[in-house]
Amino acid sequence: MLLLALLLAAAAPNPPPAAADIVAASPPAAWRAVPADDLLLLDTARGTLVVQLAPSFAPAHVAAIRAQVRAGDWTGGAVVRVQDNYVVQFAAREAKRPPAAPLPAEYDRPAAGLAFRPLGHPDAYAEAGHVEGWPAARARGRVWLAHCYGMVGVGRENPPDVGDGRELYAVIGHAPRHLDRNLAVVGRVLDGLPAWAALPRGTEALGFYKTPAERLPIARARLAADLPTADRPRFEVMDTAAPAFAGYLDARANRAESFFVVPAGGVDLCNAPVPVRRAK
Amino acid sequence: MLLLALLLAAAAPNPPPAAADIVAASPPAAWRAVPADDLLLLDTARGTLVVQLAPSFAPAHVAAIRAQVRAGDWTGGAVVRVQDNYVVQFAAREAKRPPAAPLPAEYDRPAAGLAFRPLGHPDAYAEAGHVEGWPAARARGRVWLAHCYGMVGVGRENPPDVGDGRELYAVIGHAPRHLDRNLAVVGRVLDGLPAWAALPRGTEALGFYKTPAERLPIARARLAADLPTADRPRFEVMDTAAPAFAGYLDARANRAESFFVVPAGGVDLCNAPVPVRRAK
Repeated sequence: MLLLALLLAAAAPNPPPAAADIVAASPPAAWRAVPADDLLLLDTARGTLVVQLAPSFAPAHVAAIRAQVRAGDWTGGAVVRVQDNYVVQFAAREAKRPPAAPLPAEYDRPAAGLAFRPLGHPDAYAEAGHVEGWPAARARGRVWLAHCYGMVGVGRENPPDVGDGRELYAVIGHAPRHLDRNLAVVGRVLDGLPAWAALPRGTEALGFYKTPAERLPIARARLAADLPTADRPRFEVMDTAAPAFAGYLDARANRAESFFVVPAGGVDLCNAPVPVRRAK
Repeated sequence: MLLLALLLAAAAPNPPPAAADIVAASPPAAWRAVPADDLLLLDTARGTLVVQLAPSFAPAHVAAIRAQVRAGDWTGGAVVRVQDNYVVQFAAREAKRPPAAPLPAEYDRPAAGLAFRPLGHPDAYAEAGHVEGWPAARARGRVWLAHCYGMVGVGRENPPDVGDGRELYAVIGHAPRHLDRNLAVVGRVLDGLPAWAALPRGTEALGFYKTPAERLPIARARLAADLPTADRPRFEVMDTAAPAFAGYLDARANRAESFFVVPAGGVDLCNAPVPVRRAK
């Protein structure tokens, strides 16, 4: 039977390419370099978390985070919470300075003028799609970033508080899309999340660590733009308007790999992460 | 502003209950005891993984797994693979016995005669819903268990292999629903997954551990039915046909907690896990 399967696979004329093959074969034009000012680097004993900031979606929050990093507030911060199937949360150290002016609630933005690329598959929450390389959703003339695995948001207290960017979380579980439009999504993790997602879950309510000793210290926090050019890590994100991305989505929805008996015929927004790679 | 928000919250007449409140207030009739023969217990230094088997969906695979456990094949097994945002995989120790007759491909079953409760929200893959306490999907007269966080399936090689139940995986990331209908889903984790989901990710391809020393040994494997009655852990799963479950789903789709500014108005199948509790 195994031999038969191998023979059948060999006989299939030009099987459609797998998603990984499409990504590997995509032309340079299908990629966008991440600006160095959008790359936040958090060094810990569990490696460096590389976060791509999303200034076009949460400009005030991103500006606040950049200012905190440059003021040294994040060096000496820590991972303070790990809740299974939900989030890892990390905080700047407490600042002695008075808070700046309140930030706006950058939870969504007008859809007008945005090149929203519909996913083309149903979504339980809204119309799913992509904007400028980001997983997003659209409804009633508004667009917002979707809480997929690895997306980074700003923790806050109850409304009207919107957070000040000094508490961030990254999603490490099934997409908590109910958080969409309720918090400021400010970016996504490009590298380093697996090690953080494997941190011990906190034992206090909501997965907070019980003691300071359990926290993972942030030894150093920097923006790539503040490093010497030669030292900057460089990343590229697939252009979600590129034909290669359409091919990638189609391959994720209809897996051609011989492992699959029944292609899904559809794909959930957060089950087709936008391809990311280190630039050469 | 904070005071104003508190006043407004206090003035809200009878806010709808939160999902947790609905679960807490649900009557005993809204719960179903898990049969002791369906409870697989895997003891490790990272705690006991409690798996509820799904004999009505994968009877041959579940029978094989029960026989392996009773033959002692799983005591001495190990966690062999942890792939971030995907699965933790665990294997029985290698058996010297010849394999039994091939198992059927229990990837789905006829919808006829099943009480499928539609979720009522769009799904990228099929019609989402619940059957007999399980997250499921339906299309073209067939029903299958959905690969939500914590669901357990049987690893296999390329078709026509269907696996023999000696390699199991539990989902620890965003629901890999493309696996639906392609593998035998045999159950779900009721307890103990957070500790396993926090295991170090394997460094080999697909997250396999490189060395045997990295594996987490399974010190003991048993079915609850084989323990003295007083020693059996007992779990209950919410009856997905109960009115309380409908209320729970509605509360998950429209969060009434004061934290939320905009209720989602929908909920993804895997973002509303079926409530589970230890029996008193």
